Order: sequence, then structure tokens, then C-alpha cells
Amino acid sequence: MRRFLVLGHEAHTSPDFSLEDLPGTSGRIDVLARCAASAFLLSHGIRKDVELYLVMHGPSRPPRTIRMAGGELRHLNPDERSTASLFLKALQLESIAESVSTPGIYVSGIGFAKLLESLGGPFILLKEDGEDMRDHRVPKDAIFVLSDHLDFSEEEEKALMAHDLTVLSLGPRSLHSNQCITLVHNELDRREMET
Amino acid sequence: MRRFLVLGHEAHTSPDFSLEDLPGTSGRIDVLARCAASAFLLSHGIRKDVELYLVMHGPSRPPRTIRMAGGELRHLNPDERSTASLFLKALQLESIAESVSTPGIYVSGIGFAKLLESLGGPFILLKEDGEDMRDHRVPKDAIFVLSDHLDFSEEEEKALMAHDLTVLSLGPRSLHSNQCITLVHNELDRREMET
Repeated sequence: MRRFLVLGHEAHTSPDFSLEDLPGTSGRIDVLARCAASAFLLSHGIRKDVELYLVMHGPSRPPRTIRMAGGELRHLNPDERSTASLFLKALQLESIAESVSTPGIYVSGIGFAKLLESLGGPFILLKEDGEDMRDHRVPKDAIFVLSDHLDFSEEEEKALMAHDLTVLSLGPRSLHSNQCITLVHNELDRREMET
Repeated sequence: MRRFLVLGHEAHTSPDFSLEDLPGTSGRIDVLARCAASAFLLSHGIRKDVELYLVMHGPSRPPRTIRMAGGELRHLNPDERSTASLFLKALQLESIAESVSTPGIYVSGIGFAKLLESLGGPFILLKEDGEDMRDHRVPKDAIFVLSDHLDFSEEEEKALMAHDLTVLSLGPRSLHSNQCITLVHNELDRREMET
């Protein structure tokens, strides 16, 4: 199982945004939609061995976490709008305990620090100044942690560092989180092929 | 200069599609918008050393080619909708000779085979059964050629094979074209760092 966690610092936690203007109205749910596409989509099909946590800390009832389970997802289209409309649907549910929205899409009231605790690690933080992932063994159960368009705050980094954490780099340029997910998959795909 | 060419087999060549339903109305202009984001966007900024050719063969006045020049692009947002609206604007121009639409975005009436001839190569075709790109030297002026959600036809492959063509693979899984562009950039970024 490959696991990714993306923190959406301002991502709206109420279904109050417009699919016609995601960047302007949703706290950048479009970033999270692109992460979902990179996490799950192959050219013809869905990666079933992937779990993605989208942690949303924006208005109006933070935190909410959408968990997507590749093995249960029926359809996921590559365009941002249709993925965001799945999130819109999930955010209509208000329970704190995890409940199912559509097949493979779950939502709960857990936030970043508590989710880290509940998952336990090992966590891998992707940063330009980390060790090169190509030279580094990755535990099979690792959870790759990424931020959206905003950097992690000091407090969030502290929450991460309280756990089993490795900092890895994917290359010399600072990239968008969905691009990072694509690069992680490629490196792990190559390793699977070799074994 | 890094150059990419993406063929949109059914991509509309008239500004007749809806930004509210790109996958359903535009012949998959959404695929091309994602390719543009992968080709040009870094976490904070635009890759200036990139040129992208989006060749469109769909209705109603094929072919059209949109050329994007990273060094001249003023703004490019990461969301599909705003990129597609730039394409919508470019497709309002009808001249066969290349004309400028918005800064860094050009449009002309050239099609796939003629564009290959005009660029001349060397071309790199990305395919799962090619040699691994990681083990392969890439000429500095290479043009990476990709298809959209549809495979190249026999005729299109023939047009490619009439030129200086290398077939390379990025890994064992078949990916979306925007994901391939991200992987090519990463490999070239790493090589630039080494030199």
C-alpha cells in the first residue's frame, strides 16, 4: 500500500465553493484535486494500492479529512472539476467519526496532528534539502507527507518531528505537490519492477 | 531549451467548447491544459526554458497548433480552467500563419506531420517499451513527443519514423501525458545539477 497525506491549509471544509472558480473560492481545493489525480490515475485505470489523505484546515468547520481508498474507488476522472465535485459531496457530511460519501471516499473530523498520531508513521517528508529519494530505501508502509501551495508552519513541522520521520528530496527544483506524487510513484514503480 | 509536442487527436480547433465541461465538450482540451501546467510550472514560478507545441486535430477547422513559449509567458495558473480559457482565446484567431494571442501564446494552422517536418528533430517518443531514459543521453535540442488520451495512429507513427527518432521509456507503468512531462523535467533537472 502506498500512502500519501496532503495538508490543505486553507481548503474549505464546508461545501460552499464554486466549481466554476476553484482557485478563487475553495481555499485551493484544485490543488488537492490534482493530487488525487496524480495519486490514483494511470493511463488506463486506477492505482488500487494507494490511499490518500486530504487534510483540510480551511473554513467553515475545520478540520475535515477526506480519505480516498484506491481499491474501492469506482471512477475517478482526470479533470479537476469532477474530482472537486466528489469533494463537494463528501463535505456535505458533518459527522466527526469517519463516514462513507461515495465508493472509496470517506470523510471525518480529524485534523493534521491527530491524524499523524493515529497513523503513527513512518513518515516521509518531501523537501528540496532532504537526501535523494533515489539513493534511499523506503519502508513499505511509509506515508509520504506533502503540503499544498503553502509551506508547513513551525507548529506543523514540530508535530511531524514528534514521529518517525525521514526527509527526502526528489530533485533540485521545488515542485507542485501533485508533481511530487507522480515522481514518488515512478520511483516506487521502478523498484517494484526490479524485485 | 526543453521542447515538448503533444498531439490532441480530437482537441477542438474552434472556440466552441464550455469551460464548465472540458472533458465532455472540447475533445479533451483538459488533457492539453494539464500538459501545459506540467511543462511550465514550478512551485513558485514558470520554467522559462520550455517551449510547448499543442497540436489540435479536432473540429471544426483542423489543424491548429498552439505554441507556448515559457520565456514570454506572463502568467500561467495551475488550474485547468484558466489555462483552457487561454486556449479558447487563442482559437478565436483564424489565420494560417502564426499569430500571437496573449503573451507567450501563439497559434497557427500547422498540423502534426508538417510541424514535425518544420521542427526537423531530433525527436524522442515516450513509450513503455523504449530504452530507459535514465540510461540514455538526451540531445540538448531534443523534442519530446507525446499523444493525448488516444494512441498515435499508424500514419502518425510513420510520420514520426521518417525523422531522427529515439524511443525512450520513463518507467514500467503507462501514464498520462502530463505525468510523463513531469518525469522528463525531473530527469533533466537532475542532469543539469550534475553538470
